[in-house]
Amino acid sequence: MPTILFAAKSERWDQYEAPLRAALAEAGLADARLTTEADPATVDYIVYAPNSGLTDFTPYTRLKAVLNLWAGVEDVVGNPTLRVPLARMVDPGLTEGMVEYVTGHVLRHHLGIDTHLQGDGNWRPETTPPLARDRTVAILGLGELGAACATMLASLNFRVTGWSRSPKALPGVTCRHGADGLAETLRTAQITVLLLPNTPATEDTLNADTLALLPEGAVILNPGRGALIDDDALLAALDGGRIAHATLDAFRIEPLPADHPYWTHPRVTVTPHIASATRPGSASRSLAANIRRCEAGEPMIGVVDRSLGY
Amino acid sequence: MPTILFAAKSERWDQYEAPLRAALAEAGLADARLTTEADPATVDYIVYAPNSGLTDFTPYTRLKAVLNLWAGVEDVVGNPTLRVPLARMVDPGLTEGMVEYVTGHVLRHHLGIDTHLQGDGNWRPETTPPLARDRTVAILGLGELGAACATMLASLNFRVTGWSRSPKALPGVTCRHGADGLAETLRTAQITVLLLPNTPATEDTLNADTLALLPEGAVILNPGRGALIDDDALLAALDGGRIAHATLDAFRIEPLPADHPYWTHPRVTVTPHIASATRPGSASRSLAANIRRCEAGEPMIGVVDRSLGY
Repeated sequence: MPTILFAAKSERWDQYEAPLRAALAEAGLADARLTTEADPATVDYIVYAPNSGLTDFTPYTRLKAVLNLWAGVEDVVGNPTLRVPLARMVDPGLTEGMVEYVTGHVLRHHLGIDTHLQGDGNWRPETTPPLARDRTVAILGLGELGAACATMLASLNFRVTGWSRSPKALPGVTCRHGADGLAETLRTAQITVLLLPNTPATEDTLNADTLALLPEGAVILNPGRGALIDDDALLAALDGGRIAHATLDAFRIEPLPADHPYWTHPRVTVTPHIASATRPGSASRSLAANIRRCEAGEPMIGVVDRSLGY
Repeated sequence: MPTILFAAKSERWDQYEAPLRAALAEAGLADARLTTEADPATVDYIVYAPNSGLTDFTPYTRLKAVLNLWAGVEDVVGNPTLRVPLARMVDPGLTEGMVEYVTGHVLRHHLGIDTHLQGDGNWRPETTPPLARDRTVAILGLGELGAACATMLASLNFRVTGWSRSPKALPGVTCRHGADGLAETLRTAQITVLLLPNTPATEDTLNADTLALLPEGAVILNPGRGALIDDDALLAALDGGRIAHATLDAFRIEPLPADHPYWTHPRVTVTPHIASATRPGSASRSLAANIRRCEAGEPMIGVVDRSLGY
């Protein structure tokens, strides 16, 4: 039976040990050795968090695969000591959580919910929002998460435009790609959702130039990756008032430092990287299923193409 | 060509005159006489707001139908001088707006969005919400609006239970009815949405007894009618802390008086009856279509059964 090294911070072990043992047993791997400490030469699989401290995979001479605990692999994909397949987390719970977060915050901005939270005794029926069919939402990134969010928002009748690196097609969604497609998408985007992977090509997708394309009063939602936004350019656009609000869940440095201007900016909402939080129960089932597949000689789910970086 | 009396407050006329004339023209009724003042004996149809001041229909001797501007008909259905068919507003825009409001506020409470709006520099990933599949939402009332909301919430994976006066069936929704069904529904309802019609049988559906059935930390959403809730009982349950929050859009007296305790209660959000706001564009198309149907001898959409009160 395989040896599985759980390489993540100790609080993760507290969350994952029980559900992962249960999921391994369900997958027919009850006898697997699941541990947080092992002689590297005995390890078959590493369940891996990039912030675990493990950065040199060289001593793991019989390693078959590394299974990333998260969907984002930017902190491990370029590691030259990693020579076995790397699988990112593909967790139905993760997609569901992201759809819930994005749909909830898009509706929050669409409905103007914030304006009603401080009741002041003034009845203002003129705050009735338009219908979703008269609101344009742009989803940048049409991978598994972006496509699921775009589809849900389209089912709520939003006018959804999607943009991706390569051409895609999604029912009910206007899909564009390439640099011209991005400019065209941003020009009408009342709410923009960033769900691109973090690669050199996507860094600073929202910068001074692209922010200037957005319509007056635009709202930005970033549940993707911090590096997709040029933070100084966003703060300047928020200060200037052209961008009405930014709701941010991902940052270049996490936890977001307590003195970062985002925390106190009146047009910014900070959430602590919870949109794509991996839930231990469903994530453990995905990890166990991938180890079972690998042991059976079947292809794993979510293997990363290292030439693309995701 | 028929004479159509528009009986509503003058600000409604300002909103409706242009879209209603356009919709009548589109429906082949360009020559209809649309007016806010007419000799009662010449009027064929009344587009009616119950707060218009018109309460005696006796002089309207050639009246064919009354078309209510809203979905709720409780202020006109019992009028003994009304002897022609009464149609409530069945407006696709109204259903869409309700689904958007209910989905947005259910997700707001599900995700705990309010807790993130006052950023204090503290990164709290433990605020990660459960998945919708682990959250139970009860919809009381499975008419057109309730059924549409239940279906959308089920498609977001919420565990949706629906309750109605008579037995109903909806895909993906656990449906119950009758008094026992109500108690069973409330006992597991983490979020309860009130979308019952306002009838003598539904008044005070949420009272001290039924509120006591809800689980600790329950949230109440009332986009329906104010009379569905015993306000004193709700305030007591909120003060006691068992009910975590109430988001209310409908009240016994509207506008909600400026000194009402709901305005300043820390566990209450007041919205100014915007969930089921009729949007003039789509509502005008529904009104014109019903007049065209009636003129052609076809049954109107949304005719009220006055023995049931809705």
